[in-house]
Amino acid sequence: MRLKIKKLKLEAGRPIVFLHEKTAQKLNIHIGDRIAITQKNLRAIAIFDIVKSLVSEKEVVLSQEVFEYAKFNSKKEVHINLALSPESTTYIIKKLNGKSLSREEIFAVVGDIVDNSLTEAEIAYFVAGVYEKGMSFKEICFLTEAIYKTGSKLFWDKKEIADKHSIGGIAGNRTTPIVVSICAAAGITMPKTSSRAITSAAGTADAMEVLAKVDLSLNDLKRVVKKTNACLTWGGSLGLAPADDKLIRVERLLNLDPEPQLLASIISKKLAAGSKYILIDIPYGPQAKVSKEKARKLKLKFLKIAKNFKLHMHVVLTPADQPIGNGIGPVLEIKDVLRVLQQNNSPKDLENKSIFLAAKILEMMGKSKPGKGEFIARSILETGVAYDKFKEIIDAQGKIKADLGLAKHSYEIKAKKSGKITLIDNKLINYISRVLGCPEDKKAGIYIHHHKNEEITEGQKLLTLYAESSKKLKEAIHFFNESKVIEIN
Amino acid sequence: MRLKIKKLKLEAGRPIVFLHEKTAQKLNIHIGDRIAITQKNLRAIAIFDIVKSLVSEKEVVLSQEVFEYAKFNSKKEVHINLALSPESTTYIIKKLNGKSLSREEIFAVVGDIVDNSLTEAEIAYFVAGVYEKGMSFKEICFLTEAIYKTGSKLFWDKKEIADKHSIGGIAGNRTTPIVVSICAAAGITMPKTSSRAITSAAGTADAMEVLAKVDLSLNDLKRVVKKTNACLTWGGSLGLAPADDKLIRVERLLNLDPEPQLLASIISKKLAAGSKYILIDIPYGPQAKVSKEKARKLKLKFLKIAKNFKLHMHVVLTPADQPIGNGIGPVLEIKDVLRVLQQNNSPKDLENKSIFLAAKILEMMGKSKPGKGEFIARSILETGVAYDKFKEIIDAQGKIKADLGLAKHSYEIKAKKSGKITLIDNKLINYISRVLGCPEDKKAGIYIHHHKNEEITEGQKLLTLYAESSKKLKEAIHFFNESKVIEIN
Repeated sequence: MRLKIKKLKLEAGRPIVFLHEKTAQKLNIHIGDRIAITQKNLRAIAIFDIVKSLVSEKEVVLSQEVFEYAKFNSKKEVHINLALSPESTTYIIKKLNGKSLSREEIFAVVGDIVDNSLTEAEIAYFVAGVYEKGMSFKEICFLTEAIYKTGSKLFWDKKEIADKHSIGGIAGNRTTPIVVSICAAAGITMPKTSSRAITSAAGTADAMEVLAKVDLSLNDLKRVVKKTNACLTWGGSLGLAPADDKLIRVERLLNLDPEPQLLASIISKKLAAGSKYILIDIPYGPQAKVSKEKARKLKLKFLKIAKNFKLHMHVVLTPADQPIGNGIGPVLEIKDVLRVLQQNNSPKDLENKSIFLAAKILEMMGKSKPGKGEFIARSILETGVAYDKFKEIIDAQGKIKADLGLAKHSYEIKAKKSGKITLIDNKLINYISRVLGCPEDKKAGIYIHHHKNEEITEGQKLLTLYAESSKKLKEAIHFFNESKVIEIN
Repeated sequence: MRLKIKKLKLEAGRPIVFLHEKTAQKLNIHIGDRIAITQKNLRAIAIFDIVKSLVSEKEVVLSQEVFEYAKFNSKKEVHINLALSPESTTYIIKKLNGKSLSREEIFAVVGDIVDNSLTEAEIAYFVAGVYEKGMSFKEICFLTEAIYKTGSKLFWDKKEIADKHSIGGIAGNRTTPIVVSICAAAGITMPKTSSRAITSAAGTADAMEVLAKVDLSLNDLKRVVKKTNACLTWGGSLGLAPADDKLIRVERLLNLDPEPQLLASIISKKLAAGSKYILIDIPYGPQAKVSKEKARKLKLKFLKIAKNFKLHMHVVLTPADQPIGNGIGPVLEIKDVLRVLQQNNSPKDLENKSIFLAAKILEMMGKSKPGKGEFIARSILETGVAYDKFKEIIDAQGKIKADLGLAKHSYEIKAKKSGKITLIDNKLINYISRVLGCPEDKKAGIYIHHHKNEEITEGQKLLTLYAESSKKLKEAIHFFNESKVIEIN
């Protein structure tokens, strides 16, 4: 069908086309369908949306992104039609039917994810296929390669670029700023990009954002790393593995995290970031994402894939039976980080885990003899050298006038009896902090006064809850009272 | 986050919310996310879209549909946040993990599909789960019940409402207008609603639209049926089984058609239409959707579910080894229908199949003794009574000044050798008709001059292709030459 272009400076963040309801009916297309727009030899694919009030039946509105892609002449008509399904949909069916995909087939799927040719529903079918049928070692390697080759890539003059990654899920596990500061102070190059919170109270990027700018351009990031050996930024704006970002978005709808994609996701991002030496932390236990048995198996798979891509990798399994540190929430967590770096009443669990991880990296990078890493890491921390490095990184990224005050409304939860704390439920702590407003409300969250295995007496403070509104606070208190977050026996 | 409402009369066909890119970043939300919008006790769920140019960072634009739903005061601020996943997502995970769902769980999923609480990607996970793990007989019944109970329902004064349904997929299989005309002429009430083409050249609604209005309101439909005993309309606008419409839309992305959903889809629509006597036609064979073996099994399942819902059902298995009739495409198919009804050089395969199906309905409804149905159906057709009924139905629906001319550009495909036709590939015929412009270009399509098993001589016409543009015609000819559509031996 030929339609006139109605000019409207419409930036939509993605290529979309607006048509009148009746035009859509005639073309038998539905919201979310892929539309092919052609004008002589120019062609673009966009997603269809109805907006009755903006267009007539003879017109089409194209978002700026479509013009940027195809350079259409806005004075001439375009031809609009339903786009045929990309070839990769047949590979998705193949995976749903339990068959292995070839390198070419996996590259086709990933390429079509990146250039918007596959809709989110089609991506969901792919995730479901991988979830149901799994992937062979070969397929996981193809997926990893495809994800990192379809995105931007960071290049470094030095070869010895280090990185760390935690499988995540443990509340308060904010080791990254401490580990990076210690390692960078020891002369290791660590361009660390992190994510924002997906299901937890805060991601490293959310916490760092309290103190510094985190959405840096590629050039700014390189400048910071050149100056300080490291950075602590948000990876989302860099386009390092755009297919992975879309896959994660579709996976998290159901909190599915099929193992082949978990592996491909982590390793492809490290490859794209140009890292060669990688420490992987897998927290295990009933409060973590995986059991000890599963963690062991996962470790072997990580090492096998890393070898395939010529990466030096060290994997540690860390027991996780409760949240780490005292603060849960962006400001509360960065305060814990500062207490460790300033060596001022630091939460020992967070400090010890950070030193353990930093030590592994120091040893892996030859900055320490085997077995001596912890001693060196601790001295870098205790002498204040790590804190100086941290401040240097913050200044280079762009320091923000930090407001470390906490949210307006607070409530203290006290022990109803004396005894030993036998449970602090990590998942429920994460959930309550979301109810309290994290990660959006940076000053909201939970302060944990006592940890598991500590003896307490009736009336002692267990948790302090912080929220920006009394409604959120009430909701969180209600939820706490209804569920078993903490047990004392 | 609290935002001002920017007033903009924006009809989007569904509840959507536009936010500035930066606001979305702060809220950590992505395109397609479900957003909860609240104002005191008022609450609505809408889907998020970015349109940078329409809103500032402090504003939100809500489509008219959101206002209609929640009656917000547009002068006051609203609170915007990411909506929590509906409970039904956990049931979708349960199905993906191979577990059976309870009645309540299936109703929750279907209810959330209907009220937009589940995104298309989440619906895709559900379809994938059903595709991978199947459903028990009980689950299929719950699904059927849930689909028809969450939509509108037609009520009739009479109890004996008849209906027919073909599993579809055979090009040119346009028996419905003929069967309905014969049965209605015999005094049977048949309020037939049909779909538009999904993957074929034309649906019954596309073909009927050449002659009459097909998008009737519920009231108009009732008026037509009261007057003529029947109708031949489009079911899409009636909201009879809205969950099914959405499921089909997500399924067809990959042309997945899991059997439990096929069964639930067909039976729920018949229940919603108030039909009590149903004839199901299952075409089988290498050119059809199912093999003879599968067709037999499917028949038993249909009968079992029908019994559960107290429906009288008759299932026929019809061999399908090639397209039916001569015309493929909306106008070409309605011309075949008219040739049969007018008894003017009618395509015998289409005529015979229509009589066979009509006879089964006449016998099922007690309008004929067993075994005498074909005789009665044929006399109704041959005496012109069926054609009179057809014209009556068209007049009542709203006659359109019919233009039965064919598309501008045409091309004849001739036999390259003499011999017997051993193959006319049904799926490729469907595909070529789509390339020629069907169903959008109503006058486009294919005329099949000779059928399978006919003897022909070199140079005789095999097919005539019709298209509205020479480009589409060329594309179709190119495709024909590259593939084995017809074989002569």
